[in-house]
Amino acid sequence: MVGTAASLFQRQGYAATGWRQVIADSGTPWGSQSHHFPGGKEELAVAALTRSGAGYERLVRQAFESAHPADAIRAWASLAAEVLEASGWADGCPIATVALERAHESDALGDTCEQIFAGWQAAIADGLEAAGADPDRAGKLAMLTLCSIEGALLLARAARDGEPLIVVGEELAARFETEIPRSG
Amino acid sequence: MVGTAASLFQRQGYAATGWRQVIADSGTPWGSQSHHFPGGKEELAVAALTRSGAGYERLVRQAFESAHPADAIRAWASLAAEVLEASGWADGCPIATVALERAHESDALGDTCEQIFAGWQAAIADGLEAAGADPDRAGKLAMLTLCSIEGALLLARAARDGEPLIVVGEELAARFETEIPRSG
Repeated sequence: MVGTAASLFQRQGYAATGWRQVIADSGTPWGSQSHHFPGGKEELAVAALTRSGAGYERLVRQAFESAHPADAIRAWASLAAEVLEASGWADGCPIATVALERAHESDALGDTCEQIFAGWQAAIADGLEAAGADPDRAGKLAMLTLCSIEGALLLARAARDGEPLIVVGEELAARFETEIPRSG
Repeated sequence: MVGTAASLFQRQGYAATGWRQVIADSGTPWGSQSHHFPGGKEELAVAALTRSGAGYERLVRQAFESAHPADAIRAWASLAAEVLEASGWADGCPIATVALERAHESDALGDTCEQIFAGWQAAIADGLEAAGADPDRAGKLAMLTLCSIEGALLLARAARDGEPLIVVGEELAARFETEIPRSG
């Protein structure tokens, strides 16, 4: 139920996703939702976003642990463009749509999205620091990186074209090449 | 009706915004919607987003026409942070929420959002070129700028904190200072 909900929230957002569709798509019996999620749709959304967020954070950490940051960001951007195109321009950021719809009205969802974004930013910053950036630069470059990838996912969905991700990936990679020398 | 709808789409998105609320908030008589918007909610959304998009494009052009790009982007980022905070973290990008919810399912809304984003990117690129950037660099820096401001608006809404906008504004300003010398 949580996995199905995560996918629906990612594709169509919070308001458009109802219990009926979550129950039908996940093949769970009607009625079980009130047992598992007494807090209703908001509680389901917190669980779904938390799970998607943790999965994405692991991928980002792996990308930055296994390559120079310039190579990691190029790979991330081009993989994101491929996944987005393969999904018919539906599977962008797993939490952005819900964050924009609900963060200002729901403290529970706002706090959840804030923590997920903070976790992703920390994953990038840790990778930049491990590659030699000083902590202050790593934090700011990580913020620029996360914001520009999020924006590129948005523009790529609207244009149904991966180019914003590729351009942003190249601009960030050039920045990392300048600020973080390759060792060896 | 279009102004009210634009504000509701900006704050809560497409799925959560119904005719009932648009009619009530705009003080127009029930029934007039089918006269003015025979194409239904999608037609209303296209009109609302187009209007918001044109207004925002004028502001961006003015910002880049009246100052060096580094000063323009700092001013834009800090104004966006102020407006967002003053609205209770509700008034971010006027089209992002609808774009994420609907662009992959509605060609009319997808095309509208694509054209609005392209207009904003062109406004930034024109400003960078007028300040001395060559056309290729202007286009790519404009893409990075728009994506990172969009992402910063998203992260700022989730965190209910303007810091992502300020950090991104400073990073972009530093980039513009390096690539586009101030004349005189």
